[in-house]
Amino acid sequence: MTQPRLPGRADVEAAAARIGEGVRRTPVLTLDGAELGVGGTVVLKLELTQHSGSFKARGALNSVRSLADGVPSVVAASGGNHGAAVAWAASHAGLVADVFVPATSTQAKLQRIEEYGARLHRVDGDVGAALDEAAAFSAAHGVPVLHPYDTFETVSGAGTLGLELEQQVPELDRVVIACGGGGLYAGVANALAGRVEVQPVEPELCPHLHDAVAAGEPVRRASSGVAADALGPPRIGAFAFATAGVQGAEPLLVGEEAILEARRWLWSRVRVLAEPASCVPLAAVLAGVVAVPSGTTTALVVSGGNNATLP
Amino acid sequence: MTQPRLPGRADVEAAAARIGEGVRRTPVLTLDGAELGVGGTVVLKLELTQHSGSFKARGALNSVRSLADGVPSVVAASGGNHGAAVAWAASHAGLVADVFVPATSTQAKLQRIEEYGARLHRVDGDVGAALDEAAAFSAAHGVPVLHPYDTFETVSGAGTLGLELEQQVPELDRVVIACGGGGLYAGVANALAGRVEVQPVEPELCPHLHDAVAAGEPVRRASSGVAADALGPPRIGAFAFATAGVQGAEPLLVGEEAILEARRWLWSRVRVLAEPASCVPLAAVLAGVVAVPSGTTTALVVSGGNNATLP
Repeated sequence: MTQPRLPGRADVEAAAARIGEGVRRTPVLTLDGAELGVGGTVVLKLELTQHSGSFKARGALNSVRSLADGVPSVVAASGGNHGAAVAWAASHAGLVADVFVPATSTQAKLQRIEEYGARLHRVDGDVGAALDEAAAFSAAHGVPVLHPYDTFETVSGAGTLGLELEQQVPELDRVVIACGGGGLYAGVANALAGRVEVQPVEPELCPHLHDAVAAGEPVRRASSGVAADALGPPRIGAFAFATAGVQGAEPLLVGEEAILEARRWLWSRVRVLAEPASCVPLAAVLAGVVAVPSGTTTALVVSGGNNATLP
Repeated sequence: MTQPRLPGRADVEAAAARIGEGVRRTPVLTLDGAELGVGGTVVLKLELTQHSGSFKARGALNSVRSLADGVPSVVAASGGNHGAAVAWAASHAGLVADVFVPATSTQAKLQRIEEYGARLHRVDGDVGAALDEAAAFSAAHGVPVLHPYDTFETVSGAGTLGLELEQQVPELDRVVIACGGGGLYAGVANALAGRVEVQPVEPELCPHLHDAVAAGEPVRRASSGVAADALGPPRIGAFAFATAGVQGAEPLLVGEEAILEARRWLWSRVRVLAEPASCVPLAAVLAGVVAVPSGTTTALVVSGGNNATLP
């Protein structure tokens, strides 16, 4: 496996300048830790209010704005959120997008992709199969693929969330991020390296970074469970794996019921309707997997809201 | 009709000090007006993330903390959001709450009230009937009524939203607020008097302030439509009517379809799931009833989220 060049803070700052006001500065909500049974302060980063309904808009817009002039269309494959984000970013740039989605995509995500005017291609398989078909389409038609989590542009764009959060919460000690392919984790961890601790958390049924760290290399494995539509890559991304290695990160895991309980909590206590993947950081706090000691401030990224159901 | 003493800015500041960190500082989200077809900037005040799911927590907590020592319980009547807020505020203060709700209350609101441990009393009638029964209960048992929108404490508490918004959006020109009984409108308009314009908007089927201004006095009339569970008082409150008179406010109206369209817009574009009453300000902007000229900033209060359905 080739070791990628990881973006540094200056690269993420360049991405932020490239994206500019094209993405929303999503709000933060501070909660008293006592509400969550912890001693410290918990801040929710409400990234589900982002364009296209998830943080993926950041990497997609950075990728689109990094394309060579004259590109007429782009190709993407994803569990759905990246597909919606590419459809959104492409439509704003006057480009056509062909989006390949796996069978695990939810109706809410497919609907978003079509609303933004993209051509939807359903693939009878997982995200890996969708990525393969997107690559074949790209080769056949000579149009670029915008990868969901494992390119310099996608990772740098996602990292802009970290810069924003640091401005909004100057006293920040730690950020907890759900890790699927790991683009958001890698982007934010590199943007905030040496400044704020970034803790990746995965569902027990999608433990790609956890298994890779244990094995010493990314391992292809199945994903399943309530968050697999967003956190179910064929394997951990090279950027996330390399970032975890450099930073000595220890990925944590949360169970299915903890994720669903966190989703119910967000809706009943805060009237935030997040998709299951976005509830993984809160699940880690509620389950005591991540500690929030008195006198410290932890931000939880609520990364997307492309749901079709109430909890 | 007795003219009430309206709270001034200092009274609202005193309420803010009394409430302190007992309520959440709810976040704001800035939207590019182009998304809404207007020239200026639109800011959403996401008050649906408040404790109990609506702005009513502010007035309820201010009222509870203004009670004489030794009061063992409180009584409230409301379409539901105030009832939930009183149940929440009472439980935090170690008090019992008896909450009277009309037949128009939604299941989501009744559930909230019971979750916070209040005793629920269902009344076969409208909010007026519930207010009457609450008053009779109060007299029989010697416990205080916390009015949903028409006391100094409720109005001053609601007004703290205005102080917060002014801090969050220093360039603010105008706030648009849905008006039912008018406690939030009166509170914010008096808090920001002479500083920021406050525009009340009502559903066409609950035009209590509109009709009162036309008639020169509050008029008892029926309420109906999609927002009547939250904006359907028997008549406009004395505080709101007096405030509109002092400020020369001209209440605006929006139709049912505009409210539902605004609710769909909030969900599909921002992943905010607001209750219909909370979508009245956005409906006014989307329908062109409220103008947002270039170079100006208008805040829309998304005041509650006690829904039980997706749009």
